[in-house]
Amino acid sequence: MGRVTTRRPVLRISEGATVRRPDSLAVEEPLEIRLGGRSLSVTMRTPGDDIDLVHGFLLGEGIIGSADDVSVIRYCDGVDADGANTYNVLDVALAPGVPQPTGPDRQFLSTSACGVCGKASLEAVRVRSPYDLTDPVPIVTTTTLASMPASLRARQRVFDSTGGLHAAGLFTADGALLAVREDVGRHNAVDKVLGWALTDGRVPLREAILVVSGRASFELVQKAVVAGIPILAAVSAPSSLAVDLATESGLSLVGFLRGDTMNVYSGEARIKPA
Amino acid sequence: MGRVTTRRPVLRISEGATVRRPDSLAVEEPLEIRLGGRSLSVTMRTPGDDIDLVHGFLLGEGIIGSADDVSVIRYCDGVDADGANTYNVLDVALAPGVPQPTGPDRQFLSTSACGVCGKASLEAVRVRSPYDLTDPVPIVTTTTLASMPASLRARQRVFDSTGGLHAAGLFTADGALLAVREDVGRHNAVDKVLGWALTDGRVPLREAILVVSGRASFELVQKAVVAGIPILAAVSAPSSLAVDLATESGLSLVGFLRGDTMNVYSGEARIKPA
Repeated sequence: MGRVTTRRPVLRISEGATVRRPDSLAVEEPLEIRLGGRSLSVTMRTPGDDIDLVHGFLLGEGIIGSADDVSVIRYCDGVDADGANTYNVLDVALAPGVPQPTGPDRQFLSTSACGVCGKASLEAVRVRSPYDLTDPVPIVTTTTLASMPASLRARQRVFDSTGGLHAAGLFTADGALLAVREDVGRHNAVDKVLGWALTDGRVPLREAILVVSGRASFELVQKAVVAGIPILAAVSAPSSLAVDLATESGLSLVGFLRGDTMNVYSGEARIKPA
Repeated sequence: MGRVTTRRPVLRISEGATVRRPDSLAVEEPLEIRLGGRSLSVTMRTPGDDIDLVHGFLLGEGIIGSADDVSVIRYCDGVDADGANTYNVLDVALAPGVPQPTGPDRQFLSTSACGVCGKASLEAVRVRSPYDLTDPVPIVTTTTLASMPASLRARQRVFDSTGGLHAAGLFTADGALLAVREDVGRHNAVDKVLGWALTDGRVPLREAILVVSGRASFELVQKAVVAGIPILAAVSAPSSLAVDLATESGLSLVGFLRGDTMNVYSGEARIKPA
């Protein structure tokens, strides 16, 4: 397993001069998620923390709400032409009484949608969260928020060697880092860290702050809301639908978190300038 | 339709001081792609150039190979609760004789895969291209390559106002920009620019260079190969599977294209230091 980075030869050209050397790359491989043997989704991910990834994915899709909703997850035992298991297929058995998602046309694309015609955008794609985010807690100071990207970056071991990974981290309101995960896909990094929290019995994450190294898309806000997280902070820009969902859900959404500046797009009661 | 950017109020906090002001955001909305009325995929995209996006998506999935393979594409006419068409559903009718993709379990996630168990990663997810990239043309100089990110950036009108969009551009080997598209999703930006080329009768793009503003994932290499593009250059890092597919396909893959430095991961015969 530990296939997080790999090396390939590269021709480095700088000011017309060439150097041949090995280069470290972030590993990207497909992961197929099956439910009861039936294919549910294929995501391109960095291997590692796959069980967390699957838990986080199923949580984000509204298929499970706790680790108890999963009976067993195991790697498919097929082998490739070289006789090796690629460990790229995980089959999930849901616990008795947990409903299977229905419909042969159900499509997953980090978010889910069963047909968006005749619906407003948000209504068409959102997964309902069992948690409400109306409590104006926790309160986090801007000084503490401003410290988080550097904490995240300090723990991004793979990014340092490859420059090719997104990171997602869970923090407490006083700035302590609970967990960080990296992946070539930013939604996978979030799924991994939320899946870790779910299997650790921490969902809903009512006191947590989710920090992501890139942009805040609709799907990342969706995942935070479904996990009961009250504050999402992104280093880069949010999208329109990310702000709309955050506003409607009561999530505090911070963007462009860089140095000691940031933009608060919603839920500003939880963000205390200090 | 011109919903590429929108404005939302934001609380800007810098060094503890707060300013309330409007902020421009990149619009993100769902686009459902249907084939003959049946849901095929939902992607979160920036509205605009939707017809191009659909052509590029279907090309990348190996469902169509030319614009003639599409009979008609039209927006679904459903309306939301306010009586407005969201223009978020496009239904495609393939031309007579073009095979429909089969199987109720077929999943799309920019790439396609019908089950990755017991297959090597590349074999499991790749779409076969009808074009071979064995010709060592075109040749592009590193000076010309180095000029492309700035050309792309100069045409990124929406990024300038939002900081929230990926860009993809098609260039000639002498550095002329053929087309550029922006989107909140980097695969969508590539689909839009390739869809434009397809409907303009330019596929296979045997003389073109595709430049992307972010990282080079497997899926972006896949899309380039299926469009017959010989050179892909990315501003940021490639993944392992991107390099593997580029190497196997004969695509020239350039990463970390910044200033006058770059890494050549495959197909270096087409890259001339000068």
